[in-house]
Amino acid sequence: MRTFAQVMTFGLRQIVWDHTISRNKDEEQGAPMSDPETVQATIRELVSANHILFDQGVVDGFGHVSVRHPHNPGRFLLSRSMAPGLVTEKDVLEFDLDGNPVVPNGPAAYLERFIHGEIYRKRQDVMSVVHSHSPSVVPFSVVTGTRLRAICHMCGFLGSDTPVFEIRDFAGEDSDLLINSNRLGAALAQSLGEQPAVLMRGHGSTVVGNSLRQAVFRAVYTEVGARLQSEAMRLGPVTYLTKGEAAATTKTNNTQIDRAWFLWLKAAESRTKEG
Amino acid sequence: MRTFAQVMTFGLRQIVWDHTISRNKDEEQGAPMSDPETVQATIRELVSANHILFDQGVVDGFGHVSVRHPHNPGRFLLSRSMAPGLVTEKDVLEFDLDGNPVVPNGPAAYLERFIHGEIYRKRQDVMSVVHSHSPSVVPFSVVTGTRLRAICHMCGFLGSDTPVFEIRDFAGEDSDLLINSNRLGAALAQSLGEQPAVLMRGHGSTVVGNSLRQAVFRAVYTEVGARLQSEAMRLGPVTYLTKGEAAATTKTNNTQIDRAWFLWLKAAESRTKEG
Amino acid sequence: MRTFAQVMTFGLRQIVWDHTISRNKDEEQGAPMSDPETVQATIRELVSANHILFDQGVVDGFGHVSVRHPHNPGRFLLSRSMAPGLVTEKDVLEFDLDGNPVVPNGPAAYLERFIHGEIYRKRQDVMSVVHSHSPSVVPFSVVTGTRLRAICHMCGFLGSDTPVFEIRDFAGEDSDLLINSNRLGAALAQSLGEQPAVLMRGHGSTVVGNSLRQAVFRAVYTEVGARLQSEAMRLGPVTYLTKGEAAATTKTNNTQIDRAWFLWLKAAESRTKEG
Amino acid sequence: MRTFAQVMTFGLRQIVWDHTISRNKDEEQGAPMSDPETVQATIRELVSANHILFDQGVVDGFGHVSVRHPHNPGRFLLSRSMAPGLVTEKDVLEFDLDGNPVVPNGPAAYLERFIHGEIYRKRQDVMSVVHSHSPSVVPFSVVTGTRLRAICHMCGFLGSDTPVFEIRDFAGEDSDLLINSNRLGAALAQSLGEQPAVLMRGHGSTVVGNSLRQAVFRAVYTEVGARLQSEAMRLGPVTYLTKGEAAATTKTNNTQIDRAWFLWLKAAESRTKEG
Repeated sequence: MRTFAQVMTFGLRQIVWDHTISRNKDEEQGAPMSDPETVQATIRELVSANHILFDQGVVDGFGHVSVRHPHNPGRFLLSRSMAPGLVTEKDVLEFDLDGNPVVPNGPAAYLERFIHGEIYRKRQDVMSVVHSHSPSVVPFSVVTGTRLRAICHMCGFLGSDTPVFEIRDFAGEDSDLLINSNRLGAALAQSLGEQPAVLMRGHGSTVVGNSLRQAVFRAVYTEVGARLQSEAMRLGPVTYLTKGEAAATTKTNNTQIDRAWFLWLKAAESRTKEG
Repeated sequence: MRTFAQVMTFGLRQIVWDHTISRNKDEEQGAPMSDPETVQATIRELVSANHILFDQGVVDGFGHVSVRHPHNPGRFLLSRSMAPGLVTEKDVLEFDLDGNPVVPNGPAAYLERFIHGEIYRKRQDVMSVVHSHSPSVVPFSVVTGTRLRAICHMCGFLGSDTPVFEIRDFAGEDSDLLINSNRLGAALAQSLGEQPAVLMRGHGSTVVGNSLRQAVFRAVYTEVGARLQSEAMRLGPVTYLTKGEAAATTKTNNTQIDRAWFLWLKAAESRTKEG
Repeated sequence: MRTFAQVMTFGLRQIVWDHTISRNKDEEQGAPMSDPETVQATIRELVSANHILFDQGVVDGFGHVSVRHPHNPGRFLLSRSMAPGLVTEKDVLEFDLDGNPVVPNGPAAYLERFIHGEIYRKRQDVMSVVHSHSPSVVPFSVVTGTRLRAICHMCGFLGSDTPVFEIRDFAGEDSDLLINSNRLGAALAQSLGEQPAVLMRGHGSTVVGNSLRQAVFRAVYTEVGARLQSEAMRLGPVTYLTKGEAAATTKTNNTQIDRAWFLWLKAAESRTKEG
Repeated sequence: MRTFAQVMTFGLRQIVWDHTISRNKDEEQGAPMSDPETVQATIRELVSANHILFDQGVVDGFGHVSVRHPHNPGRFLLSRSMAPGLVTEKDVLEFDLDGNPVVPNGPAAYLERFIHGEIYRKRQDVMSVVHSHSPSVVPFSVVTGTRLRAICHMCGFLGSDTPVFEIRDFAGEDSDLLINSNRLGAALAQSLGEQPAVLMRGHGSTVVGNSLRQAVFRAVYTEVGARLQSEAMRLGPVTYLTKGEAAATTKTNNTQIDRAWFLWLKAAESRTKEG
């Protein structure tokens, strides 16, 4: 079994390889990156994820994406509070699972960083978390009797149901709907359970992955699937994926994530110009 | 209590700070801008608001945004009659609350400048007004039995109902639907009441804010909320925000407006090239 | 009463003025353009109309726009058969009202040029014709029981009904739906009557104006209006404009067309690069 | 009757002519391209088709387009497994109809290359195949009681019904929905029959053409037609094309394909920058 760091390092080497189409001798021999290099590469990939999610319309000025720290499963990396489309490497902060910044007295943090910490605490398999208000998903969070589920092979990971977190059950009738405490983060993580996604009533969704790229892939295709399901439901009774089809498509798609990632990365890079 | 000028100055300093990430010694000590500087900075921000509203799809060739004068609450700043996406600093005119240009014999003014003057007259708290025909909102202005309201936390400010202004009640059955007089402007302001937005039947909407940025934020999220509500209503019975949730989300969002503003500003600037 | 040429010349002077914000002494004195200059300026504006209609999503690879000849009401100018977004000045051809090119043995002409000729023949007031398959309009051409009509002030010109031309009544059950003869063109013109627009079942629409800019304006807002009406009808019973409101809004909008035109022109020019 | 190579050569000469607006003497005399030149030109056109399908929103990171080999009807050309929007000439591979790469030990091939091989085997008339998950089409693949069909002249080729392939009938209840074997490819080809398109339940569609450009044209207008039909069905009972109209419009449109192709090519080239 590979360690967290090894998994991340492998993924990050892939970026370098695919991107530059050039490898030096050390890399060909699989020489491991040094720890600081791995962290820096993780941060760079997190910046890319921020830009991709903005470019693909999953986040607007709001929403955020984190990644578990490559060397310390008890920490995670997340931008300071700002629009994801504008995030740069120097904006990325390190947090413990309680949502405390490791370096105190830094810039303002996202009010909802507790979403990330509590999911990393509960789900050892999760390496990355995306929280968004993507527009086709929000409607599914506020209606009763209709549940978001797998309507096509690209969305197989959604399975036969996506849980909806009703914050009123934990914060009462007068909350601002935000997951602004560890208590609410833990409640959301409980609602997520072992699923890849949880909807948040009147708010948005949180999607997880066993890698940054998988989380981004799933966040994009949760939005795509919601739009397809909404359209299909208006045409007539819908045939959804079976449980077996959902599992099999998920397994296959997990081998294809980089095909989308590098396309989205190129699109985001050509449209996002950092100042 | 801060004066109008102080409120504006504070906001404008923020622009400079966030934008250049550089402050000189005077600014750090909070030295107030001189009056002409404040007015010029207000005009610059109004130009940005015009471009943002166009870039975000709230206005097309039509619609307009104004800001109350930073030193004279009895006046407001508004572009001459032209497409918002093309407005430059030299196109901004000063009006009194009756909609008369302060400098006579200038270029043509918007036919509906009375929307702005009459709302500033009635609502002391309003510092900025956006009038638009944004596409997801118009349908809510022409149907009976369905009202635009807060469906998610970003749209909490919409509360449990958005009033609809029926111009037929004031201008009869043969009007051109425009608010082209102080009398109609006052009627619209009456219909707006203490709300942040009023729909105008067969026409569009008018949204207000306690700052230019808040008005722009609300104009964008009124459009977003209308689209989400329209989609959700087709999926099934909808759970809207409670009155308490609407109030709490509004309060929280008011602290987050700049996060969206600077993203939209960057997007607008990269796409709008002034001649 | 102004002649065709005078009307066109006036319109074209406006372009020059608004565009360059510079006028020489002759122009200020209203010296008329020479005939060849007027024709050339008309052609330039027709090229702009082609690009605007593409940029605004009214036409894709198909659809076309024509303008009546500025000096000869028995002729009209229309591009050779090609995608409107790629049209340049040298692609514009001159036709008589029968759809014959004035210069024989030229490049291929649009199969449906008879739409234009027959409408110019029947409607002395029409100076420009736009034929398109704009996506929100086609659905209204194929359904019974729902008619496209004025739902908001920008679409007031649509009035209380838009006729639908059923080609089966004239070409039988096996036609290719195209207006490929003077006979069918005349039938379409008859269906159009004195209206500004006619839908064509399973095909698209044809919109006319008393100037090139008005025809383009109406083509864009026919598409916008269809989308708004379709959305509104799903929300509940709709309040449409009264006959008086439709007339009054049309009159007002006719004074505002250039505000949209110059915005669209700038957008089209920045996105369309001619080879 | 022209050979495959002649058909392809003719098409490719057209590209050169229309694109460069320059012809050398040999070309004017119709001197045939040498075999390697034809293959290379076919590959270039296939790369363009990949970029067009991405730029027009028919494919995202997934989906693929192939063309039958110009000199060997028992082979076809298809990119290695990657996002279509990023394909370059060096990524194109040659396959036999069993889906085996002609040059062994090359880069990873698309998992679903069997779609292409089996359709080329069954349909001698097919020169190009497009497989996609275009978003307006997928909903029609999962509903019962509604079939995708020709709603307007641009989509006449869809005729009065589009078959839906239910993979459960061939791969059981637990498949990953992919056509990952010759057996499933043959079943899909059987479902396609003599039609231009077949929907794939919970997956997407496959569209064929007698040329690369016709297949691309049909893939784009299958997406357009699905969107129009979905919108129209919500407005009321729909009048579809008769069988005769579908045939006549298809015949006419086949003469107009290049008008769309060169527009789309220009758009794709201006937006796709190959590294």
